[in-house]
Amino acid sequence: MKFDFYMPVKVFSGKDCVKSNADKFELGKCAMIVTGASSAIKSGALDDVVSVLCDKGIEYVIFDRIRENPLLSTIYDAGVAARKYGCDFVIGIGGGSPMDAAKAIAAFAANPEIAPDEIYNVGALAPSLPIIEIPTTSGTGSEANPYSIITLDGEDKKKTFNSPYSYAKYAFLDYKYTLSLSRDYSLSTALDAFCHCIESYLSPKSTEISRMFALWGAKHIWDAFSQLDSGDVSEETREALMYASFAGGVAINTTGTGFPHPMGYNLTFHSNLPHGRACAAFIGKYIEYQIKDEKGKELICKFADALGTTAKEIALRLPALSEYSEEIDDSVIINFAQKIKSAGNFANAQYKISYEEMIKIYKELFQK
Amino acid sequence: MKFDFYMPVKVFSGKDCVKSNADKFELGKCAMIVTGASSAIKSGALDDVVSVLCDKGIEYVIFDRIRENPLLSTIYDAGVAARKYGCDFVIGIGGGSPMDAAKAIAAFAANPEIAPDEIYNVGALAPSLPIIEIPTTSGTGSEANPYSIITLDGEDKKKTFNSPYSYAKYAFLDYKYTLSLSRDYSLSTALDAFCHCIESYLSPKSTEISRMFALWGAKHIWDAFSQLDSGDVSEETREALMYASFAGGVAINTTGTGFPHPMGYNLTFHSNLPHGRACAAFIGKYIEYQIKDEKGKELICKFADALGTTAKEIALRLPALSEYSEEIDDSVIINFAQKIKSAGNFANAQYKISYEEMIKIYKELFQK
Repeated sequence: MKFDFYMPVKVFSGKDCVKSNADKFELGKCAMIVTGASSAIKSGALDDVVSVLCDKGIEYVIFDRIRENPLLSTIYDAGVAARKYGCDFVIGIGGGSPMDAAKAIAAFAANPEIAPDEIYNVGALAPSLPIIEIPTTSGTGSEANPYSIITLDGEDKKKTFNSPYSYAKYAFLDYKYTLSLSRDYSLSTALDAFCHCIESYLSPKSTEISRMFALWGAKHIWDAFSQLDSGDVSEETREALMYASFAGGVAINTTGTGFPHPMGYNLTFHSNLPHGRACAAFIGKYIEYQIKDEKGKELICKFADALGTTAKEIALRLPALSEYSEEIDDSVIINFAQKIKSAGNFANAQYKISYEEMIKIYKELFQK
Repeated sequence: MKFDFYMPVKVFSGKDCVKSNADKFELGKCAMIVTGASSAIKSGALDDVVSVLCDKGIEYVIFDRIRENPLLSTIYDAGVAARKYGCDFVIGIGGGSPMDAAKAIAAFAANPEIAPDEIYNVGALAPSLPIIEIPTTSGTGSEANPYSIITLDGEDKKKTFNSPYSYAKYAFLDYKYTLSLSRDYSLSTALDAFCHCIESYLSPKSTEISRMFALWGAKHIWDAFSQLDSGDVSEETREALMYASFAGGVAINTTGTGFPHPMGYNLTFHSNLPHGRACAAFIGKYIEYQIKDEKGKELICKFADALGTTAKEIALRLPALSEYSEEIDDSVIINFAQKIKSAGNFANAQYKISYEEMIKIYKELFQK
């Protein structure tokens, strides 16, 4: 048995939890609000936050230049701006990209002398500015962990920034922010959260606690897939999905993710495929390989049991929901494999696939 | 659904986790080690800690005057001593009493100007010294929450100290420290942890996460009762019990406890009955009353289901395991009721018993 655990984020949940916990925003005199182009506005989250900050007499600067797969250069620029405007705390509002970016911006703002790529020299960093995270999607779970996935400029490559100062002080989980999400976006983000749960559950680093969170999350997402697929999602399910996404974030905080994540990154860059769908495309193969290992088989059976289904059904359903069937050339696949071959995720499983197996998986999935 | 959560303690688990995480003890130059008379020594925990501190060149002072139901005056004395010796962090080793005391000592040491009873003026306190908690019993769960149950001098009355600075920075869960515990002590502490789980599960303040921890803990303790009763407990079960106790501590960190706790305090003072047995004596009546409420009935059925048993079986087994059958006079019962009537625990349930029902319960249990 393993029971190691760390989850210092204080979570507030439920409708209007931002407004009903307004005092928690008193973390400084000026906030940098980090958002994407539109989701913070459309969801209503930005309005809630701005209204709370105004009530409290706290100034703010909005940095809304974060896009999907945010670039290191953009994040660095935001850190410079945060210093310029005297921001003393950071509020990330959005999906994974703004929330991830907020963590790195909080680090850059507190470390004025470092160059962009020096952020990865974590041991040399001063503590980040305090961070608040407010998800407007139910997928990333970024609000539950210190991971910040950053795209390196001009490299089509992601590199995770992960500092002990990157945990949010507070996370606000209000499902009403997800009510305006499209069918496709809701489904893709849910697939991401489900992948976090299953990949974490099968990790050798998993503990009794991380598996408890992973199962809780996976069960609620699994039960929601038919609503998500139809596009007609009840408020009750929206709420469960928001918490399930957080649970997945807690689970991977202990374990990290498995190979569907780096293998999916390539599809995202290649085909502009949303991250959740990109990861889900590999879950069938992931299960196929994990079952080759005795412990992997035992775990996947327990996981499926708890969901009231079978490993086979999960292995079929996830790739189907990912709705990706592009053909990919040999040369592109070799390039994919080269790019991710040194990722730590491959070792983070019961059955560790080889470089050759990685190529085989790409070919079996994306060549007729 | 509710999903609020806060659990900032970083948990290390498994055999020899103190020694294998020695760097975590580098929290200052001089530690005050807070223990009881013998458990820290007998368990081997003190040896492990001292050896780590010596290796790291960290000085320490041992305060071993904590007894069951620790007095405010003793705790205050320890705080004064911590300042006198220049201690800059506190390590609690033991059952609930030393771990609870460590939290209040860390507060007194950081607040030199306050009188003993001013510790309850939490808003006025400076941050406590950093705290490490190392349980040597599987019951209290104190290492998972900020509660510090203190007995007021000359009053036979407990009053909880609870500050936001009272969370341990680190908790080390090594079941080997519990291998030397007697049958009676193991059983009583397990009963305490089980009561935390069931009382938390039925609290209106419970959330999806707190109930997840409560069920996990309760299931493992329930499965261990026959071993505990026989006195022959396997190492595997010892390990599960240590984590179950922590899980109970996480659960009550969100919810607090229900009426078996204050009602049990009276038995402890009256008959010197160990805390866990004292609380367990009321679980039958607790279930009987909770079932009167529709939501209470639903919850207790879910709880029993998850344990693979029935509410009735739990209601019979817990009081039986408490092994308490003293007769108590009317006048003593009235005195009991007077002492605890203002405790918040009574409201912390689906069915809230009245003053008259409280007296009725005492009479039905302890008068022929």
